[in-house]
Amino acid sequence: MKNVKLTIAYDGTRYSGWQRQINARTIQGEVEKALKKLMGLDITIHGSGRTDAGVHALGQVASFEAAFTIPVNRIPIAVNTILPDDIVVINAEEMPQGFHARYYVKEKKYRYKIYNNRLRNPIHRNYSYHIPYEINMDKLIEGSKYLIGEQDFSSFMSSGSSIKNTIRKVYSIDVYKQDDFITLDFRGNGFLYNMVRIMTGTLLDIGGGKLESQELPKIIGLKNRKRTRHTAPAQGLYLIEVVY
Amino acid sequence: MKNVKLTIAYDGTRYSGWQRQINARTIQGEVEKALKKLMGLDITIHGSGRTDAGVHALGQVASFEAAFTIPVNRIPIAVNTILPDDIVVINAEEMPQGFHARYYVKEKKYRYKIYNNRLRNPIHRNYSYHIPYEINMDKLIEGSKYLIGEQDFSSFMSSGSSIKNTIRKVYSIDVYKQDDFITLDFRGNGFLYNMVRIMTGTLLDIGGGKLESQELPKIIGLKNRKRTRHTAPAQGLYLIEVVY
Repeated sequence: MKNVKLTIAYDGTRYSGWQRQINARTIQGEVEKALKKLMGLDITIHGSGRTDAGVHALGQVASFEAAFTIPVNRIPIAVNTILPDDIVVINAEEMPQGFHARYYVKEKKYRYKIYNNRLRNPIHRNYSYHIPYEINMDKLIEGSKYLIGEQDFSSFMSSGSSIKNTIRKVYSIDVYKQDDFITLDFRGNGFLYNMVRIMTGTLLDIGGGKLESQELPKIIGLKNRKRTRHTAPAQGLYLIEVVY
Repeated sequence: MKNVKLTIAYDGTRYSGWQRQINARTIQGEVEKALKKLMGLDITIHGSGRTDAGVHALGQVASFEAAFTIPVNRIPIAVNTILPDDIVVINAEEMPQGFHARYYVKEKKYRYKIYNNRLRNPIHRNYSYHIPYEINMDKLIEGSKYLIGEQDFSSFMSSGSSIKNTIRKVYSIDVYKQDDFITLDFRGNGFLYNMVRIMTGTLLDIGGGKLESQELPKIIGLKNRKRTRHTAPAQGLYLIEVVY
């Protein structure tokens, strides 16, 4: 029995998210199908977490246990010839017994990409969030400081999550602008359901002059979503890295 | 009667190229359909040139003549609400009678994007050419020098073109690398059918050690395609700008 850690990149555009579903194409479903074809075994992979429909990944991690003969370092090349062209296994390594991609996460890195121009960009439409109005970068960055640290982020969680502990630690939010693209890089010990997208939408409201950053402590204190209604859409979000 | 110059950006992935066809979705067809819906008139637009299926544009230019009442500077906003999300009219301006997007081109700029990594990149698969082997940038740049200037580029033209005059002037080829992306920027007074893609394929053969750049003058002198078989695929090519 081997315990394997896979690192996976994908374009989420054509998928109904990460998690396997009966009647929809999902990343987990495609990877499991390809592994079955490669190894002749039914394999269940466990992701570090779900990603929603349209969300992309450069470094999603999944683990699985199985008894197979193919050398672990040969898995990426072999499985990539079977996978569709919008999913790639970029690394495979054998882990000690007991490793599990979901339960041992130390840190996650997400990126959110915004295309900030009066006109939409046809090339980047599935890979960024189009904001046609002006964003004040100083205000956006000022707002981001309030979201750093260990806090109860209930105000930044979509319903539909059964999670009880809503305290998370955000290590950093790096914001930069290049040409018409604004990029937000989030690092934290974990993120609640839609938390990165709600934080991004809220920071865009601040940068767009619809909300003052000084209101953020109050909004966080409410522990309620009613003041954070702007959820940035899925297609701008990338799961960059999972650290164990 | 107004004579209008449109600047158009598009993601060519889902289209059978620029030119209108009866039974296929094309850029020209979609833009004409949207203009008809907007103006209630049958309109024929003339592109600066065709682009093939899968080729993208940031600044394709097309012109049309019609008698209509909507102010020309309102056309982009109005027509973009009708166009599909992978085509955008970025500018419209009125031109003197006689202007024609095809016949008055002074210069064209094309970009070719290569993703150079052992593994394919799912996010960029429709927007770059995946080269898994190592490219020697010095050799590629050395090779590009031989393609500058006014020359008969018959060796870099695909069949299927009825053009008689195969002399073109290439003003510059700028090559740069950032992370895993190699970008080639071509400027010239015009390009033959598939010329940018064949030049790119040939330069990649030189950078990949399959061809010596010193052979290029001989290959150009042959005026024959048999030595330039490597045509880089459509999805890495972008029409950047048309100068009049």
